[in-house]
Amino acid sequence: MRVLGIDPGLTRCGVGIVEGEPGRPCRLVGVHVIRTDPDDPIDARLLRVDTQLAQYLRDYRPDAVAVERVFSQHNVASVIGTAQASAVAVLSGARAGVSVATYTPSEAKAAITGSGVADKKQMTTMVTKLLRLDAPPKPADAADALALAICHVWRGGTQARFAAARAALDRKGTRR
Amino acid sequence: MRVLGIDPGLTRCGVGIVEGEPGRPCRLVGVHVIRTDPDDPIDARLLRVDTQLAQYLRDYRPDAVAVERVFSQHNVASVIGTAQASAVAVLSGARAGVSVATYTPSEAKAAITGSGVADKKQMTTMVTKLLRLDAPPKPADAADALALAICHVWRGGTQARFAAARAALDRKGTRR
Repeated sequence: MRVLGIDPGLTRCGVGIVEGEPGRPCRLVGVHVIRTDPDDPIDARLLRVDTQLAQYLRDYRPDAVAVERVFSQHNVASVIGTAQASAVAVLSGARAGVSVATYTPSEAKAAITGSGVADKKQMTTMVTKLLRLDAPPKPADAADALALAICHVWRGGTQARFAAARAALDRKGTRR
Repeated sequence: MRVLGIDPGLTRCGVGIVEGEPGRPCRLVGVHVIRTDPDDPIDARLLRVDTQLAQYLRDYRPDAVAVERVFSQHNVASVIGTAQASAVAVLSGARAGVSVATYTPSEAKAAITGSGVADKKQMTTMVTKLLRLDAPPKPADAADALALAICHVWRGGTQARFAAARAALDRKGTRR
């Protein structure tokens, strides 16, 4: 399963692509950061994020897109730009016909480090370890995007196992 | 000049199209509300808003798009959905190659009613009057979108006059 993770931001939007299966180490496929100039008008900035994401979706052909869910607990001043970038991210997946999942920062942290309150350094360390890299992925901004992608590979697996278990129970029920 | 105004929202997104020139009454061209189900996943909702807006841009071929600017003063819980819908709105204009302007609610109110703190009823009354309609535009949700479009026709005119004045000054400067 190949997943493209997106850590949405208007100034820096992290993009990380991994491949893997639930319960096994993932493989790093690609990592990027889309940057836009805060002095540019909002339409130019959103169009740039949209155009780049569409390009990565064409280049990497992921099975799913995992986007960080924007939270009302965020700083109000910064939440607007993050929410706008996240809308472009979610829409880019939807437009490409790829399934889109969203995860809160604490869900991604818990999946990767076992703790929902892990700090940036801990996340980078674990992403580096889980992808069996010799050095932290660069650009460093993209570590959270990789974490989201790994989170989705594993959670997607959980969901798939639940679905399999439910299907097995249904079959048993039918046999009774 | 034909302007498509967008009052962004995820549950209800108002769209109003007017035609006019600065300082003269505008003509109502079209008015719509795009609705999405709050129970639907976010990717389906954003895709629906995007698809509908793209359709209206093709149908009406406006010279400009005017979108309400999202404000950090908004309620934090509702600001995320509004910011996401506004990103889709701004992006739809940018993707269509149409110039995009954003106005704060008080800029639109001041342009239409003379007061930046006008209430909903006052805005609807003035929009009805300015478009010389016999009854308030329906759906009522779209009055703010029409106000944004009228605001842009008039403000666009101001900007055009400033540009003309600056150009005239430049020419004088050259002649000296």
